[in-house]
Amino acid sequence: MITFRNDYSQVAAPEILKKLVEIMKDSFVGYGSDEICDSARAKIAGYLGREDCDIHFLVGGTQTNLTVIDQMLKPWQAVAAVDTGHINVHESAAIEATGHRIEALTPHEGKMSASDLDKLCATHTDEHMIRIGAVYISNSTEIGTIYTKAELQAIREVCDKYGLYLYLDGARLGAALTCKENDLTLQDIAELCDAFYIGATKNGGMIGEAVVITNDDLKPGFRNMMKQKGALMAKGFILGVQYDCLFTNDLFFRLARHENEVAEYLVKKLNELGVRFFMDSPTNQQFIYLKNEAVEELKKNYGFEVWEVGEEETVIRFVTSFASRFSDVDQLVSDLKELL
Amino acid sequence: MITFRNDYSQVAAPEILKKLVEIMKDSFVGYGSDEICDSARAKIAGYLGREDCDIHFLVGGTQTNLTVIDQMLKPWQAVAAVDTGHINVHESAAIEATGHRIEALTPHEGKMSASDLDKLCATHTDEHMIRIGAVYISNSTEIGTIYTKAELQAIREVCDKYGLYLYLDGARLGAALTCKENDLTLQDIAELCDAFYIGATKNGGMIGEAVVITNDDLKPGFRNMMKQKGALMAKGFILGVQYDCLFTNDLFFRLARHENEVAEYLVKKLNELGVRFFMDSPTNQQFIYLKNEAVEELKKNYGFEVWEVGEEETVIRFVTSFASRFSDVDQLVSDLKELL
Amino acid sequence: MITFRNDYSQVAAPEILKKLVEIMKDSFVGYGSDEICDSARAKIAGYLGREDCDIHFLVGGTQTNLTVIDQMLKPWQAVAAVDTGHINVHESAAIEATGHRIEALTPHEGKMSASDLDKLCATHTDEHMIRIGAVYISNSTEIGTIYTKAELQAIREVCDKYGLYLYLDGARLGAALTCKENDLTLQDIAELCDAFYIGATKNGGMIGEAVVITNDDLKPGFRNMMKQKGALMAKGFILGVQYDCLFTNDLFFRLARHENEVAEYLVKKLNELGVRFFMDSPTNQQFIYLKNEAVEELKKNYGFEVWEVGEEETVIRFVTSFASRFSDVDQLVSDLKELL
Amino acid sequence: MITFRNDYSQVAAPEILKKLVEIMKDSFVGYGSDEICDSARAKIAGYLGREDCDIHFLVGGTQTNLTVIDQMLKPWQAVAAVDTGHINVHESAAIEATGHRIEALTPHEGKMSASDLDKLCATHTDEHMIRIGAVYISNSTEIGTIYTKAELQAIREVCDKYGLYLYLDGARLGAALTCKENDLTLQDIAELCDAFYIGATKNGGMIGEAVVITNDDLKPGFRNMMKQKGALMAKGFILGVQYDCLFTNDLFFRLARHENEVAEYLVKKLNELGVRFFMDSPTNQQFIYLKNEAVEELKKNYGFEVWEVGEEETVIRFVTSFASRFSDVDQLVSDLKELL
Repeated sequence: MITFRNDYSQVAAPEILKKLVEIMKDSFVGYGSDEICDSARAKIAGYLGREDCDIHFLVGGTQTNLTVIDQMLKPWQAVAAVDTGHINVHESAAIEATGHRIEALTPHEGKMSASDLDKLCATHTDEHMIRIGAVYISNSTEIGTIYTKAELQAIREVCDKYGLYLYLDGARLGAALTCKENDLTLQDIAELCDAFYIGATKNGGMIGEAVVITNDDLKPGFRNMMKQKGALMAKGFILGVQYDCLFTNDLFFRLARHENEVAEYLVKKLNELGVRFFMDSPTNQQFIYLKNEAVEELKKNYGFEVWEVGEEETVIRFVTSFASRFSDVDQLVSDLKELL
Repeated sequence: MITFRNDYSQVAAPEILKKLVEIMKDSFVGYGSDEICDSARAKIAGYLGREDCDIHFLVGGTQTNLTVIDQMLKPWQAVAAVDTGHINVHESAAIEATGHRIEALTPHEGKMSASDLDKLCATHTDEHMIRIGAVYISNSTEIGTIYTKAELQAIREVCDKYGLYLYLDGARLGAALTCKENDLTLQDIAELCDAFYIGATKNGGMIGEAVVITNDDLKPGFRNMMKQKGALMAKGFILGVQYDCLFTNDLFFRLARHENEVAEYLVKKLNELGVRFFMDSPTNQQFIYLKNEAVEELKKNYGFEVWEVGEEETVIRFVTSFASRFSDVDQLVSDLKELL
Repeated sequence: MITFRNDYSQVAAPEILKKLVEIMKDSFVGYGSDEICDSARAKIAGYLGREDCDIHFLVGGTQTNLTVIDQMLKPWQAVAAVDTGHINVHESAAIEATGHRIEALTPHEGKMSASDLDKLCATHTDEHMIRIGAVYISNSTEIGTIYTKAELQAIREVCDKYGLYLYLDGARLGAALTCKENDLTLQDIAELCDAFYIGATKNGGMIGEAVVITNDDLKPGFRNMMKQKGALMAKGFILGVQYDCLFTNDLFFRLARHENEVAEYLVKKLNELGVRFFMDSPTNQQFIYLKNEAVEELKKNYGFEVWEVGEEETVIRFVTSFASRFSDVDQLVSDLKELL
Repeated sequence: MITFRNDYSQVAAPEILKKLVEIMKDSFVGYGSDEICDSARAKIAGYLGREDCDIHFLVGGTQTNLTVIDQMLKPWQAVAAVDTGHINVHESAAIEATGHRIEALTPHEGKMSASDLDKLCATHTDEHMIRIGAVYISNSTEIGTIYTKAELQAIREVCDKYGLYLYLDGARLGAALTCKENDLTLQDIAELCDAFYIGATKNGGMIGEAVVITNDDLKPGFRNMMKQKGALMAKGFILGVQYDCLFTNDLFFRLARHENEVAEYLVKKLNELGVRFFMDSPTNQQFIYLKNEAVEELKKNYGFEVWEVGEEETVIRFVTSFASRFSDVDQLVSDLKELL
């Protein structure tokens, strides 16, 4: 079965498996203090163009989000996010379980608007209300859209105005940074955010999310926090291997670019078919409308996610991954043609 | 450098890496709902000799402990543990971070005594005090000792008397079940505990801890809880691979038995050298006294952990793993001889 | 200065102060186990017409809400509330601080609709989402409206359908039960809710909220929970005095009825003036529009709350209390006439 | 029945009740922003001899402890306390419920030793362990002993060495400061602690604990924190009345001195009887041994607490209060004589 279900359906990019096999007779110290993790950190620092960031390797996105956000907030502070934000919908109240409220804003194409954020902070001054302490955004967003440099700068300005930390969920940062419409660099993100993560799970890694902390205030105690949240992996070198490979010879960016190129090809082909899109996305998540019967038929041979079910039509999501092939798209489009 | 630092220094048993390479072109659904996880669950159920347990795959020990214990307790309940228990010392207050107190008992050779537990419950009835709601024990313990069947039954009886859940941390369950002095089976443990985990990280797996829930009351919502704690891994099939391999042809037990055999050989050789043991352990963790200077010298060529530093002598810990070789022991003992 | 700021501006009804003075030479055991608390519980039970409820005396509303709701929920469960609900806006994320998410619904005249609740539960079945475990409603609501018996029954039915606990915040329950439009009795509320509280702070008591627990599952450990949340008052008999007085000779209901009668008189007079109401409320909270300049002028001699500030007009809130006088209303209306 | 059960058995000192009656027709704004609270704060500041402290009025001791300690700690930090500390035993894990671990030290006459604290901090540096972030001590302690100035200074020095906040639970601070052996002043305490509270509940107030925050870092957001923990009382002026009265004409100190004088008289008389003391205490808590049969007999006419039950003897606690009379002591001693 050909799958466009998501970008974490396969083990890992071959380079990573190859490396794991290579080092299988070697021994490493635990908890990310090994030489492979150090090498991976150095390589990421190279891409960031700076040495002053703390870089930590965690296992998954929810774990990473709750660990970083809990580090950022005082008990009486909330994190602002758009209501479609991953932490607000699909993380089983992981943030609230650490004692913090999420203040949800209405998204604009999946993104937070700086002016909405400004208004939220301006109206949360009553001492019976929670105070905003941090901002959570995702790039690419949960529906595949991306932030422009101007948009990110505008949010940074509001953060500075109110003394908020800015945190960027980069589960799909590779897809965001390598799509055609993007005008942000990894350096920009490090400059504008207090912390962010570079996701491997959804971009060819076997497991792993690399947290980059740029703000000195957030650095002390972060490994204690990781341990407390169950995020300090005993075999940390397994995580190190992911990033050491991904940040060698641009592998991270090459894999992401491939995802986007297959997605672009898919969009082109679907447009030729006359399929209607739910919304425009420049990255590896694409949402289209299909007749309900066509959806049922398509399920027999293809993996994808059902997004929203209507009376006659359903929105479905296709996601391309490092392992997606152009020929998979051809097959899909050819079969889809029969169903329209 | 030869290492006896711990049992999680190497990538994984070759069988596991081989399997990962084999399936690298295949696609799987996410979050542990795939066919490999199902196969692994079926194999574990076969070893347990029963079909009525829920089996979940998590990533690490601290994560597993906090997820299971938080599922067991009401807000006004504490978990009892010995003061040397892993959750009480080396998990950065992960249990307290979920809102629960640990009531610590004095250990006897690293183990909890049923009568101490009984006394603790009998004296915690005042409504200004916390109530005991669950019991945490480790097998093998943090110092390598093991529970006998009679000891585990006695604790179970106290749990029944006071209505407590019994949870067993099986990070090193393989070592416990395969050592010579053991009289417990996996089936016994499933019968006597409400939940326990079978650790892979410290027994040849790359990552992973398999939680077995036997008590029906603890089953509902456990996957929501996992998600909330960041313990529901997107690429769950990676965890499935670990257990599918480990529970094929007794691999889990063969690896553990090997650890214990190398440890036994080490004990025999160290006894011949006249080295003094900190305590008796029947499993893969061994603790000895060494002169402080000898420790410094030994560090140059061997990996091990410093346990307790005294004025003249230090207690150090050797841990054998699935990858330890008898020849490593010979080398160690030969070099150690020079230092005594 | 005449104040309509709120219903907790004065010490207490004279009956309560009188009783405190009467018993000032007596000694009582602590933590609500004294004979005055027992007497108060018996009197409330008499009004409820049943003996099978647990009744606890707590100090304030936020404390009561967080204690009861935390008792109701498992860690992976959320409480549903309307977005104007007190817990969702004005309690500094007290619920989230206990680890639980609030799922907010759009209110209808300040009230939750049973069908909205049904839809919320029906769509929260994904295991990456939080599950709904309890429902929070206020009667009277935060804007003075009240639930009809039919509305409360409809919500109860949805709760039964999904296995949810129903909790009613009765900070202003007196006002709700004694207003003209009300068709609910205290007995109805005890029958339809799993727990609720009868507020004294906002109805003539000096301090205190009486929690009534009708569902047996919620009873065990509640005093341990109270202690943990700082809600088990050492001098519990002070709280007992409040309820012993309030539930003697219908004082609770007489005070509330007075509040509503003064409010009704205020509404009549304001209508005669032609003032525009923000919304209809049958209880002791009344909201009107005033020109911004008039608001500034009125502030000089009257206490009230500013609810919403517009460019030309402001919504202000008048609250009547057990101590409000009809002559205060006459004075206010007379002065207001000059400002229109 | 004559009671020596505790120091919170009666409503309040007459001065306080008188004041409540006096102001019962007046109206006040809510949440402690009224003129009586301001007056009380000014009077306390006068006694402290400084204007730079934030002073907040809370309701009870457990509530106060959990609110202040949660303000002091980051999620990965613990509070150190002696194992007999109130927060460690009799608060139903209120601190742990805010997510923080208590690291318990062995007490010396109920007190923390600075060198024990130093050692604890020195050994908690491993990142798998919790870090110490704050210190909790009680004065007088849970068994009636008091800290000397030198002892408090020594603890302060360790706090400075490791960057810890120092918090003093002053539930019985009045008794501590007015006993004969005391060499500390309120000003000393303000100088040496980052925060502390002056307890009214156990010293003649009806309710209330006044938190004094001296460290600027702990001031921001404290009222939001109070609101979140259910500690921001709507009728804050009731709390203001307590402190306004207690800090007028030294009432607070006069009441406490009386408690101690009656206790001293009790000690003298019990010594004359030849009763054996469990330990020496210079304040209003006194612990003696009695034959088990005598305890049962004494219970018939006197209120007191059973502390520890032995096979033949029981330790019982007598507490004197602002309302205790010398004649009560005479009666007790006379009756006790018959039972020895």
